[in-house]
Amino acid sequence: MSTTPLPTSFAPRTGEQVTAHEASTSGQVAAAAQRAAEAFTALRTTSPAQRRDWLRAVADSLEAHREELAHLADEETALGLDRLTTEIERTVGTLRFYGDVAREGSFLELAIDDQPPLARINQGMGPVAVFGASNFPFVLGVVGHDTSSAIAAGCPVVAKAHDAHLGLSLRLAELVEKALADAGAPTGTFGMVVGFDAGVELVRHEAISAVAFTGSEAGGRAIWRAAQEREIPVPVYAEMGTVNAVVVTPAAVPDLASIAEGFVNCYTNCSGQYCSKPGLFFAPRGSDAAAHVARALEAASPQPIMLTEAIADSVRAGLAAMSEEGAEVVLRVGDDDRGWSAPAAVLSTPSSAIFEGSRLLEETFGAVAVVTEYDDEQELSRALEVMQSALIAAVWTPETGPDDLAPQVIEQLSRKVGRVVTNGWTTGANASWGMQHGGPWPATSNPQGTSIGAASLNRFVRPVSFQSTREEWLPEGARRENPWQVTRRVNGVLEPSPHVAR
Amino acid sequence: MSTTPLPTSFAPRTGEQVTAHEASTSGQVAAAAQRAAEAFTALRTTSPAQRRDWLRAVADSLEAHREELAHLADEETALGLDRLTTEIERTVGTLRFYGDVAREGSFLELAIDDQPPLARINQGMGPVAVFGASNFPFVLGVVGHDTSSAIAAGCPVVAKAHDAHLGLSLRLAELVEKALADAGAPTGTFGMVVGFDAGVELVRHEAISAVAFTGSEAGGRAIWRAAQEREIPVPVYAEMGTVNAVVVTPAAVPDLASIAEGFVNCYTNCSGQYCSKPGLFFAPRGSDAAAHVARALEAASPQPIMLTEAIADSVRAGLAAMSEEGAEVVLRVGDDDRGWSAPAAVLSTPSSAIFEGSRLLEETFGAVAVVTEYDDEQELSRALEVMQSALIAAVWTPETGPDDLAPQVIEQLSRKVGRVVTNGWTTGANASWGMQHGGPWPATSNPQGTSIGAASLNRFVRPVSFQSTREEWLPEGARRENPWQVTRRVNGVLEPSPHVAR
Repeated sequence: MSTTPLPTSFAPRTGEQVTAHEASTSGQVAAAAQRAAEAFTALRTTSPAQRRDWLRAVADSLEAHREELAHLADEETALGLDRLTTEIERTVGTLRFYGDVAREGSFLELAIDDQPPLARINQGMGPVAVFGASNFPFVLGVVGHDTSSAIAAGCPVVAKAHDAHLGLSLRLAELVEKALADAGAPTGTFGMVVGFDAGVELVRHEAISAVAFTGSEAGGRAIWRAAQEREIPVPVYAEMGTVNAVVVTPAAVPDLASIAEGFVNCYTNCSGQYCSKPGLFFAPRGSDAAAHVARALEAASPQPIMLTEAIADSVRAGLAAMSEEGAEVVLRVGDDDRGWSAPAAVLSTPSSAIFEGSRLLEETFGAVAVVTEYDDEQELSRALEVMQSALIAAVWTPETGPDDLAPQVIEQLSRKVGRVVTNGWTTGANASWGMQHGGPWPATSNPQGTSIGAASLNRFVRPVSFQSTREEWLPEGARRENPWQVTRRVNGVLEPSPHVAR
Repeated sequence: MSTTPLPTSFAPRTGEQVTAHEASTSGQVAAAAQRAAEAFTALRTTSPAQRRDWLRAVADSLEAHREELAHLADEETALGLDRLTTEIERTVGTLRFYGDVAREGSFLELAIDDQPPLARINQGMGPVAVFGASNFPFVLGVVGHDTSSAIAAGCPVVAKAHDAHLGLSLRLAELVEKALADAGAPTGTFGMVVGFDAGVELVRHEAISAVAFTGSEAGGRAIWRAAQEREIPVPVYAEMGTVNAVVVTPAAVPDLASIAEGFVNCYTNCSGQYCSKPGLFFAPRGSDAAAHVARALEAASPQPIMLTEAIADSVRAGLAAMSEEGAEVVLRVGDDDRGWSAPAAVLSTPSSAIFEGSRLLEETFGAVAVVTEYDDEQELSRALEVMQSALIAAVWTPETGPDDLAPQVIEQLSRKVGRVVTNGWTTGANASWGMQHGGPWPATSNPQGTSIGAASLNRFVRPVSFQSTREEWLPEGARRENPWQVTRRVNGVLEPSPHVAR
């Protein structure tokens, strides 16, 4: 008899139970990993165009079940039908885009040399374990960026169902498995396990060749450690997120009221439950930035409802810890006792409180932000230097005209984050060639990876060279005739594929 | 007063001391890392063409000092003047090639999108710690593939001098620093530390952003662990090597005598001190393979002299351990007591001794190889399955005509190694686009990296996206006008650079 409670999802608006499901047993985890390993022997030789067709079949299925899925997700996440429907559409677009990226084939890095005769091509690494996030049940969920880029790259996926949207995860797995089977993909191309322990066992299973994770730093570190402790350590792409900064330059102060309004909209949207949420707002001394933000927060008056009880608790705990660290709570709104509600708040701190290791530089996941004023360029530079590395940062500057500080700040931030945005918000990352969603440790566990964008496929392949090998014994994609019509390099000369992914 | 002996190199032919040098103090390690960090602030914005010119200056200097360097190296390594002169020429070629690869710019993965406005470009990660190998004092030494690819990618290097060729390391560092300074590279672009403890301190220093290592599995794992235990873990590219297999198919048995001769030449060349040395020879049952190899070994009669006393000792220890594991020493030659001499040997084992975890599947660095005969396809496949992952494998098959087994073996090996060679030897890896010198753990600590070839630059960069940024505030290389003339992708369409690297 187990005393561990069943994995269970709840309705955040009421706190009532929605879905409970047995956790996967060790035997079930092993079986899922084994099925993925068997699928891999077939998948690794399939053409990218073939996998593109499978991903399109999954996209079509999500599209066909859009309404049902949005309702399921809304019950378990309270993120709202509009936002969730848009997220399903983004997921559908992502599945199609990664399929096209696979077909274009740059991710294969195919290089053919005559002297010596070599053909180098990237191949799928093997089954990938995917841990989705609570806050994007579709696009970062069991069939989000990680799953679709892994399959596009030729790797089967075993996802871990997220407890916060367990019912949705189970339904998605059903739809994905059916769509893949109907499209002719091997059994085991996608599988799922349920429960925390099952997830850890999955990471430790010898058939798993890489891990993708989106979530908290504690969770990401635990998964990363488990993977490093294996007899054969495997790469872990954990997107853990930290605090994303916004810098307003002196030249932009005349627009501070509207910038503050945009900031509040951004950090309170979806109750601030974004890894890309801006959490720290730098404005020049004397700009009265905290008051501007507080006014905007008062006007917006959000009533945050969090994804889980644990997140709601951590918002309150985070606010208390930040107060202890010397930050003043300028305004706190939305306190409520329904379901998983939590307050929204703006805090203010003297810039002297921005020191290495300060609690103010750690993420508080929720509609909470800290405002600080810097004296001058040196003071700002010092504060940015002690910040943890992050996913994203934003700089506000006039659209045109002089601004001496902005280029320096952009340069400094580019050393610490994966993406720097000018005059825009840190949230909102869609898959494209130019997108980078990653960053140095501890924003992620691998500074070279991106969990969103065309380059996300690169995470799951490894190169193999074939030397002096008969044409007919080469992997199909590496042959001279270029049967897959992929981008390649022959004796140093790049030959772009006729298939362009946009 | 320290009781640690001074780092010292010896003449392997006599065992006499050649060079002794104080180990770097903690302060000197910190200063070297700090100089590299300062150089990085300049390096990260330099153009690849600029860095190419620096690397060419280093190449020119090595070329101009070829004779002096070969003599220095020969005294400390006993690898022979011819081989060492060739190795210097390869190093010179490598420096020039990586410079050209940098200028071509594919490693930047530059992608520009209009909707949303994004420019994604790879940037140097920061100072790289380089640990060269004893067995290739030039091309895998303090200014070998790792150092030149790191500088090409925009990263300063702090190398650790190798004790086995300490005098050469010190002279190389002098030449490299001077050549770089004369060519206008920032101080700190290259630096060096001496001593084991200094190397470990270097890996732990916060300024170090990545580590490249070539050497033993024990050394590689220690460096890897130290890097993972940092507050900010950093990527480690450790090329540790394991046992590289050679498979002779039944169809190739008529050529077995000449294959055995080639095998002996390969595994005894330079006293078998290659990470690419073939260590395990699979031939069909009844082919009398061990006798063929023993005859060739007897004819060759090598007299191995090892790079260090420790390596010489480990050859004898390895032979003893393999005998205990049930392998029969068919022939042992070259026993001698001069300097760091060690025997060369061929062992024979029943295929039943090829099981997971067997000592026979671990590397013995030196002129030692194991021959085994397989009953059939299933038996061979089982044996290859339990082998550790490796850098390279070779398959011998008739040049033309039918061979049912070869394509299966090539496919199976491609799942376990970084490079599969047909009808050739595993040694000899030069930098080109098609080259892969890497492999899954424990052959290396990162299955995606290569320590030789154009892709070696990729190890030391990370992507940054700039969103909605004014043209003049973008990093120079990411601007629309493409001032660096690098390969890039604009709205999904690949635009190859006019500069081709060959």
